[in-house]
Amino acid sequence: MDTNKLTVLTIRYLKEAQKTAFQEMIEELHPYDIAELYRALPEKHHYKFLSFLPKANIADLIMELDSDMQLEVLQKLGIERSSKIMDIMENDDLADLLSEISEDNLAEYLSAMEQEESRTVQQLMSYPPETAGGIMTNEFVWIRDYYTVRDAVEKFKSFAEFTRNIYYLYVIDENKKLVGVVSYRDMLIADGSEMIRDIMFNRVISAPIDMDQEEVAQMIERYDFLAVPVVDENNVLKGIVTVDDVIDVFIEEAREDIEKLSASGKDIDFNTPAFVASYRRLPWLILLLFIGLLSGSILDSFENTLEQVVALIFFMPMIAGMTGNTGTQSLAVVVRGLVTNDNDRKTVLKLIWREFKVGIIIGIVCGALVFLIATLWQSVAFGIVVGVSLVATLIIGTMAGTTIPIILSRVGLDPAVASGPLITTINDIFSLLIYFGIATALMQFLI
Amino acid sequence: MDTNKLTVLTIRYLKEAQKTAFQEMIEELHPYDIAELYRALPEKHHYKFLSFLPKANIADLIMELDSDMQLEVLQKLGIERSSKIMDIMENDDLADLLSEISEDNLAEYLSAMEQEESRTVQQLMSYPPETAGGIMTNEFVWIRDYYTVRDAVEKFKSFAEFTRNIYYLYVIDENKKLVGVVSYRDMLIADGSEMIRDIMFNRVISAPIDMDQEEVAQMIERYDFLAVPVVDENNVLKGIVTVDDVIDVFIEEAREDIEKLSASGKDIDFNTPAFVASYRRLPWLILLLFIGLLSGSILDSFENTLEQVVALIFFMPMIAGMTGNTGTQSLAVVVRGLVTNDNDRKTVLKLIWREFKVGIIIGIVCGALVFLIATLWQSVAFGIVVGVSLVATLIIGTMAGTTIPIILSRVGLDPAVASGPLITTINDIFSLLIYFGIATALMQFLI
Repeated sequence: MDTNKLTVLTIRYLKEAQKTAFQEMIEELHPYDIAELYRALPEKHHYKFLSFLPKANIADLIMELDSDMQLEVLQKLGIERSSKIMDIMENDDLADLLSEISEDNLAEYLSAMEQEESRTVQQLMSYPPETAGGIMTNEFVWIRDYYTVRDAVEKFKSFAEFTRNIYYLYVIDENKKLVGVVSYRDMLIADGSEMIRDIMFNRVISAPIDMDQEEVAQMIERYDFLAVPVVDENNVLKGIVTVDDVIDVFIEEAREDIEKLSASGKDIDFNTPAFVASYRRLPWLILLLFIGLLSGSILDSFENTLEQVVALIFFMPMIAGMTGNTGTQSLAVVVRGLVTNDNDRKTVLKLIWREFKVGIIIGIVCGALVFLIATLWQSVAFGIVVGVSLVATLIIGTMAGTTIPIILSRVGLDPAVASGPLITTINDIFSLLIYFGIATALMQFLI
Repeated sequence: MDTNKLTVLTIRYLKEAQKTAFQEMIEELHPYDIAELYRALPEKHHYKFLSFLPKANIADLIMELDSDMQLEVLQKLGIERSSKIMDIMENDDLADLLSEISEDNLAEYLSAMEQEESRTVQQLMSYPPETAGGIMTNEFVWIRDYYTVRDAVEKFKSFAEFTRNIYYLYVIDENKKLVGVVSYRDMLIADGSEMIRDIMFNRVISAPIDMDQEEVAQMIERYDFLAVPVVDENNVLKGIVTVDDVIDVFIEEAREDIEKLSASGKDIDFNTPAFVASYRRLPWLILLLFIGLLSGSILDSFENTLEQVVALIFFMPMIAGMTGNTGTQSLAVVVRGLVTNDNDRKTVLKLIWREFKVGIIIGIVCGALVFLIATLWQSVAFGIVVGVSLVATLIIGTMAGTTIPIILSRVGLDPAVASGPLITTINDIFSLLIYFGIATALMQFLI
């Protein structure tokens, strides 16, 4: 059934107060589908929808919504019912949700929740958001190495009824230090009377609690894990990061890369209001506006050259544009490459050398082409000025697109500053200086 | 132990021919670590390394390497030993590997392999690479709905010894049609004598075999699945796509988005040779070169205006640049948004309307700012020409960055054509036409 039909049916059930039929329908849906249905439903039906929905489904629903709608749901539920639902939400999602709530309300929710849940989630909220601690959940199953497989399976079973995401059992010693891991598959194959210590894997790969979320994601991707354990500085097991959260990290990091490259400002999506989107985009644009005026003042200083040979201007957009384009291409290779490659001296020098050669090759090809065109359109002297300028600006543009982001990240600045538009605007300046510099030097042949 | 120490130890074992010690060391490593070790090892040790390595580990190693090194390994192993290893590789990875091999060799490998494996992998290779069929594996476990949980667990166990990635059992009817799904967790909780049909989930979400890999990835991400079943047009179960492959899809799609945005050409990474990188980048640059010359010819037609008021040129880089920048920002929002949002009429119209308002807001803010600057630098008439032009070009630039990629994807063209550099270059033309158009109209006030 598609969302439209489902929405119509839902509205009928809600209007006719057919609670049982409604709940039977919901029973068959995945959390994502319930969230789609909620989003598709006109707002006036939301209250009744929530009042008909069983607690566990509301918890699922909240975890699928984005933060604006999450807050709407909480507000419609009221603090008391909300806190009951928070008790059964997955702790990592709950921590994210609570971090969006204003401080006053937060205290109310936390005190209405069950004490243990409340304590656990506050602990999770204390870790920085983009680290292993910030994305981990504490819903994992631990066992001791003297358990038999049969004991472990029993413990696993009792947890499986409450939590969805358990794929591994973690083995800890008397100090809660992580010493091994066993997968459900290992247990299936093993004999019930075997000891865990004999079947467990000892060289556990774990993420330190302060590890950047991108590195945690890489770890899971490289080893094809379903979850990775998170430990503190004493190797004490604190939680796990699961593969579904890691997919979200990859999507988030890719979005951030694109925001960098396009200087489009953080967190603008299809639903961002126009005013907010403008506000987030304007700082960059205003900075680029001033850099653009700088290009203009360079032209001002070549006014003399320009007045004598107005035709020089005809090639200006092409030269400035091409320099920006090759810079953007190099920038993309660098930004994307820094995600998957090490940022060591040797790699970086090799890359700069490669891009230098690329600059020369594309400079010569494009320069030769434009020499021909400019010669036909204006004169041989023009062809030489334009062709030589293009070779020089393409080499410099390529190098600027390569080195500026590398230097920024090396000196510890956010390489986000090196966006495509910034590189383009800076390359404008380089290209104008070179082009009009060469033209001024060869002025006698042009007029 | 880090890779350096491990490499030194490995070289010692290989030199001293300590096969047992070597294999014990390998035993403790994950496939990714074995691949890292292989990459770190000088090439002269590769042959011996492979001859010491057990078959199963070579299969793991091959699956972790990129295609150049995979082919090197096959060549070092020889066809006979390679085909033995192919027999135990995961079928989806094997299909990818074989698709890199020249046709002559391919036939040799396929005939040296076990007949059933060979047939299976040839079937997998027949699906287009970026579809559900192209990324699926056929290593899944199917059961019938009249099985008891106990029967199912037995079947699950017998498969678990051979394959790593089984999380669900798929229920099929007598025509091999997919009718249900059961997770290992459901089986753990259920009683051994229950029937599968009583505990299975009926509304199975499955991917059609020709579904684009990006949609399959979205499906797994939305539903937090570990695997999704792939079916043909008759709902016959053909294979499964697992979550680890989906992570690779997300990484690949993000890289493609960035390649689009920057027009940087496909498959350029840190290791691409300069000549190849240039060759891949040049087609775009040459196209953009001609569009850039078009801008120049527009200036040519305004030669009269330019000769009278050379100062008009001072603001040209800023206006052209700003129009390109706002276009790139909009483009990034659209390209990224089309990944996670539906591309329906309502969403698209809402987005265009939003971006129109954004264009107006940033147009007015930047236009007012530049009016002040131009008035102070030149004259009020100049301020008006430059300010009004900027308002108009920012609105048009924003709309171009929004609508061009949408239109391209709507008419079924590859929206890859709407890169940042292309939008920038097209916006150059718009901005020049508007700016010099307004200036020419108001010429009497400027001179």
